[in-house]
Amino acid sequence: MAGSITGNIIRVSTWGESHGAALGCVIDGVPAGLVLNEELIQPFMDRRAPGTRAFSTARAEGDKVRILSGVFEGKTTGTPVSLMVENKDQRSKDYGNIATSYRPGHADFTFDQKYGFRDYRGGGRSSGRETIGRVAAGAVCELILKELGVSVNAYTYSIGPVKIDKDNFDIRKSLTDPLSMPDEAASEKAMAYLKELSEKGDSAGGVIECVIKGLPAGIGEPVFDKLDASLAKAVLSIGAVKGFEIGSGFEAANLTGSVNNDSFFNDNGKIGKRTNNAGGILGGISDGSDIVFRAAVKPTPSVSIPQETVDNTGRDMTLEIKGRHDNVIVPRAVVVVESMAAITVLDLMLMNMSSRLDGIKAFYVYNRRQ
Amino acid sequence: MAGSITGNIIRVSTWGESHGAALGCVIDGVPAGLVLNEELIQPFMDRRAPGTRAFSTARAEGDKVRILSGVFEGKTTGTPVSLMVENKDQRSKDYGNIATSYRPGHADFTFDQKYGFRDYRGGGRSSGRETIGRVAAGAVCELILKELGVSVNAYTYSIGPVKIDKDNFDIRKSLTDPLSMPDEAASEKAMAYLKELSEKGDSAGGVIECVIKGLPAGIGEPVFDKLDASLAKAVLSIGAVKGFEIGSGFEAANLTGSVNNDSFFNDNGKIGKRTNNAGGILGGISDGSDIVFRAAVKPTPSVSIPQETVDNTGRDMTLEIKGRHDNVIVPRAVVVVESMAAITVLDLMLMNMSSRLDGIKAFYVYNRRQ
Amino acid sequence: MAGSITGNIIRVSTWGESHGAALGCVIDGVPAGLVLNEELIQPFMDRRAPGTRAFSTARAEGDKVRILSGVFEGKTTGTPVSLMVENKDQRSKDYGNIATSYRPGHADFTFDQKYGFRDYRGGGRSSGRETIGRVAAGAVCELILKELGVSVNAYTYSIGPVKIDKDNFDIRKSLTDPLSMPDEAASEKAMAYLKELSEKGDSAGGVIECVIKGLPAGIGEPVFDKLDASLAKAVLSIGAVKGFEIGSGFEAANLTGSVNNDSFFNDNGKIGKRTNNAGGILGGISDGSDIVFRAAVKPTPSVSIPQETVDNTGRDMTLEIKGRHDNVIVPRAVVVVESMAAITVLDLMLMNMSSRLDGIKAFYVYNRRQ
Amino acid sequence: MAGSITGNIIRVSTWGESHGAALGCVIDGVPAGLVLNEELIQPFMDRRAPGTRAFSTARAEGDKVRILSGVFEGKTTGTPVSLMVENKDQRSKDYGNIATSYRPGHADFTFDQKYGFRDYRGGGRSSGRETIGRVAAGAVCELILKELGVSVNAYTYSIGPVKIDKDNFDIRKSLTDPLSMPDEAASEKAMAYLKELSEKGDSAGGVIECVIKGLPAGIGEPVFDKLDASLAKAVLSIGAVKGFEIGSGFEAANLTGSVNNDSFFNDNGKIGKRTNNAGGILGGISDGSDIVFRAAVKPTPSVSIPQETVDNTGRDMTLEIKGRHDNVIVPRAVVVVESMAAITVLDLMLMNMSSRLDGIKAFYVYNRRQ
Repeated sequence: MAGSITGNIIRVSTWGESHGAALGCVIDGVPAGLVLNEELIQPFMDRRAPGTRAFSTARAEGDKVRILSGVFEGKTTGTPVSLMVENKDQRSKDYGNIATSYRPGHADFTFDQKYGFRDYRGGGRSSGRETIGRVAAGAVCELILKELGVSVNAYTYSIGPVKIDKDNFDIRKSLTDPLSMPDEAASEKAMAYLKELSEKGDSAGGVIECVIKGLPAGIGEPVFDKLDASLAKAVLSIGAVKGFEIGSGFEAANLTGSVNNDSFFNDNGKIGKRTNNAGGILGGISDGSDIVFRAAVKPTPSVSIPQETVDNTGRDMTLEIKGRHDNVIVPRAVVVVESMAAITVLDLMLMNMSSRLDGIKAFYVYNRRQ
Repeated sequence: MAGSITGNIIRVSTWGESHGAALGCVIDGVPAGLVLNEELIQPFMDRRAPGTRAFSTARAEGDKVRILSGVFEGKTTGTPVSLMVENKDQRSKDYGNIATSYRPGHADFTFDQKYGFRDYRGGGRSSGRETIGRVAAGAVCELILKELGVSVNAYTYSIGPVKIDKDNFDIRKSLTDPLSMPDEAASEKAMAYLKELSEKGDSAGGVIECVIKGLPAGIGEPVFDKLDASLAKAVLSIGAVKGFEIGSGFEAANLTGSVNNDSFFNDNGKIGKRTNNAGGILGGISDGSDIVFRAAVKPTPSVSIPQETVDNTGRDMTLEIKGRHDNVIVPRAVVVVESMAAITVLDLMLMNMSSRLDGIKAFYVYNRRQ
Repeated sequence: MAGSITGNIIRVSTWGESHGAALGCVIDGVPAGLVLNEELIQPFMDRRAPGTRAFSTARAEGDKVRILSGVFEGKTTGTPVSLMVENKDQRSKDYGNIATSYRPGHADFTFDQKYGFRDYRGGGRSSGRETIGRVAAGAVCELILKELGVSVNAYTYSIGPVKIDKDNFDIRKSLTDPLSMPDEAASEKAMAYLKELSEKGDSAGGVIECVIKGLPAGIGEPVFDKLDASLAKAVLSIGAVKGFEIGSGFEAANLTGSVNNDSFFNDNGKIGKRTNNAGGILGGISDGSDIVFRAAVKPTPSVSIPQETVDNTGRDMTLEIKGRHDNVIVPRAVVVVESMAAITVLDLMLMNMSSRLDGIKAFYVYNRRQ
Repeated sequence: MAGSITGNIIRVSTWGESHGAALGCVIDGVPAGLVLNEELIQPFMDRRAPGTRAFSTARAEGDKVRILSGVFEGKTTGTPVSLMVENKDQRSKDYGNIATSYRPGHADFTFDQKYGFRDYRGGGRSSGRETIGRVAAGAVCELILKELGVSVNAYTYSIGPVKIDKDNFDIRKSLTDPLSMPDEAASEKAMAYLKELSEKGDSAGGVIECVIKGLPAGIGEPVFDKLDASLAKAVLSIGAVKGFEIGSGFEAANLTGSVNNDSFFNDNGKIGKRTNNAGGILGGISDGSDIVFRAAVKPTPSVSIPQETVDNTGRDMTLEIKGRHDNVIVPRAVVVVESMAAITVLDLMLMNMSSRLDGIKAFYVYNRRQ
């Protein structure tokens, strides 16, 4: 059983390799009636594209998305939405010893172990290009969430040791900042840090934060499909993510209950919380506050410093990875985190629609269409 | 769509509330031929029981597990295994204002928001007793994993600011230590810390670490059902867990690629790794090293210090939670983390069986049974 | 991967063997707010019980259902509903050569082939008692459907060569008729036929028909989870069912298009159909007419006439099955067919709730609860 | 929750509309190591194409399949296989009153009811062209099954009143016969029947039979994912199929147990059956005999005889469907039935691999790869 399908009610099936003919996704369960066209999806694709951001590879990929099905006269029909991006550059290439050696920190070795062999061209399915299908699907889900009053925004929280300063926070800047940071000063410092590493042939990691606003209370399905658990899986499924935390996260382990608990209070007739250490989730269910989570991204393993490794016959060797590579993937991964969060939250919103008999009766009895 | 079923090939359905008639689970997909009886499961149940550990509630629950189906003449038959623990103490009780007020840090508010009302007796389904079904199922999965040469061991890594010292590590001690710590000295320090908090009516959190040994390379299903992603969801689905990290985890975000990459080398004919920052997983697939992950557990929200909150009509009030409660749940949650890891890893091992045509042919063609 | 869980949004997990400790089901996804108690479920259990109908085994089983979870103060809470029936009679018994021989028409041989051995007591999981969990779950689903204005009614359509006469049809009679037939005259003829077979030690099969009324148009999910396809699977999953047809069914294969097509017409402002050869389903989606399907039930394989067979070492032998057995299971299977139809239809109604963006917006935007 | 994904271990996601840009499927779970190229799939596509058979529309579609992912150096890699057929003819066309009226026997009305509007061009997703994705996926599954020694063959069993004669049966003829019949004489009679109907502007239905050979005993997952139940759903999910029966099927309802039971006997050291009324399935599990089932196909609803109907505002009208249409779809549906059977059987074979602990141990312990 392979794992390239995610979701329960809205289900996303992604496909494609780095240097295959094309990559894409099929989204089953897109509700009928959504205004959808390629221009609405493309900006999301551009956010993950290399060449549009500093410190990313210069190769102009021009990942143009095409809608192949599920849309008629500008609206979704309720049938599967198939989205595709063709690979322009599939020309035969010398992959050198990547075909026969195992790059440290990459999935070369584990793919060979699992499948017996691998498509080594550009990393095949373990390439960052795999996320094209995720982002295309995430774009559609974000458009639906917008109709429901829910926004999802991810941004770079830190790169290496350089963190954003919440006092200097401007979410709009993250969309134009070359490092997807919502803090100009931090971005400049991080760029200096990256330049320094680049000169050494080394790479950096970082942390991505994501905030979901407008999510009603009640979303998340105890006990296994809790909102935080589902977000964790979605985000950890992105290559290079090694950690996930919600609200006060790992810091909560050091706090005492009286400090970590968020007090409820009457906020002008609504029930509010004084703090949000919970990150907007109690018992796995959204509480109406902002959902706030963070993902730890490891440094990109493609460094040009020579590394010890073995070839696929087990012989020790020294590997030098040539060519230009991003020395940080965090800025480009921001939209991927956002996409996975959007898919997850929308799916759980749809799952929640049958949680109460009165809600089902409202749909079928009180508001019966025909 | 509710979320009380987990797994793909081995599927666990849990049920039951804190003060209902009983709690339990049904495991569909237990392979035929496993030696199974109640004595083999009970030790796992006892590890999560209160009263068996310091700083846990004194109430002697005696959670005796019964096998109701799926076993014949001492072996599993391949049909669903139904496991049940009856609640001994269901007597009517004065739940005071818990029925009508929202405890900070608890799921009272979100259950009301989602379902319209809630079983408030002892927290209902959001109680820690919900994990009885998880541990019973985890026990069965650990027994199967043992047959496959795989072990899963979780233990307390830290309580509040007190961490274990790797130089003082003895995994066997964690099974008898009152705080499930594999380091006696740390355990004593942590106990002093808890006593101090207890006197103030406050509570502590901590971190649980889990190590999986003997897992072959190749386990995990890219791109959405990766091993780390699946473990993250399983572990975050446990109440009070607020963070998850694999290998170097959040620390990886601060490292450079040349430091974080694990070099491969020829280890007497096998392919080994010099370090294990990856936590045993590359590209979402096990690499044959130990799997190492950590879970952050928030401080238990039941503190006896008076807290600000609202009642279910939205009126501000001050809440005093009476009665004895654990002021740390980490030691009892250790076996729950281990159980969720066992269920997840076994499921992914079974999912991996169809990853190669030659494996399928070995099953049906070369070794054909009839 | 075993198959004891069914459904997508409402998910039913059944468990239990004929002579184990108990049998039951867990229903995940029962919406909160349904009035539920044991008295509401028991009548469904009684309809499938032997001893309550002519030509069924006299053993008084008294299958009393217990609710173990998911209900608080008389209403469902949205958490899993666990239902259990204890087996009263588990006393050790001489199963004679059933343990070591393969009864023709039974699953003895195939269970051994699949699992390596089997619980031979009373057929184990392949016994008709397996349906206890189905009927308990079906009862809950029928109660929900009733709230939504949908009724499901199955009845005996034929036994052997004796068919009901539509001119003599009275659905209420099927609930009290010993053969579950809605036609008294046919029932009498069928009883005579069964008596005759009984004297010869032989058995009969028959056809069960099921009518679903009040189902709105739009239910069913193309292309794989169509309403008719889903009903077919649900019904064929019942032991002894060998065929399924919807509307004109197999007869349609002989008709011409101009005869088989159902004309639409304006029925006092609503769109109606002149005929219902489609059985209420077009393109896998309900059209607002009655859903009508039939299931073919094979003759019960337990005949007392000596039969040729082999033992589990492959030796030829003659088998004589002793003891009282129903010589027709059709009347008792009627409520099982009804239950499977109810589970299926409810699940598809819940699945349909996210088919249109405007329906989702109605739920979350226009009628937003908090 | 939409229904365009099928399968559990091998999962097929189909997409596309009759007159959209393209149609296709994504197959997740294809094991690594299968020799696959477009030439191996194309013959299956050609069997369903119109214009290749008598009594089918003359439009030369030339459904050329392309492999977009999942294959490297001529073999599958274990990653998703994406298959696509581009629609050549998408030119704007006058769909006349099909856009605004409801064709009897078609899904126009129900799609409008479910989704609010529909892609009316050529039937959109309810067109027969939807099956392109099924057949492409079915081809891949049949190629895998061939490696496992299992063959799946469907053919036309009857058209209207004309049935094949088992004495005149030659399976090879069905692949070249214009009506997919394995009996030349019957085919000629059926052609005369169709010609006669064609002159009247009327259409015919028929029955398709499918035989699966080489399937080992033990396949099928009680109690809900039985082999026969799963086949029934897969086959009923094909448009126009109105009935399904296995083995003696509906006829079994009229037989007595002593006649319908298949006796076991020692067949030169193997356990054989004297007859095969069970159609190769006992208790939902294959018994090692041939699997034999039949599907009833209704007459194609597109008749040129004027029909009563309503438009989408509910006004009564008379509809005349113009243009050339097949007046029987049975011959082209044969490969679709075969494809759905292949997908289903392969999926259940993979599901069965974890049914016994010893089988899992053989995979991971005895034959451990690394």
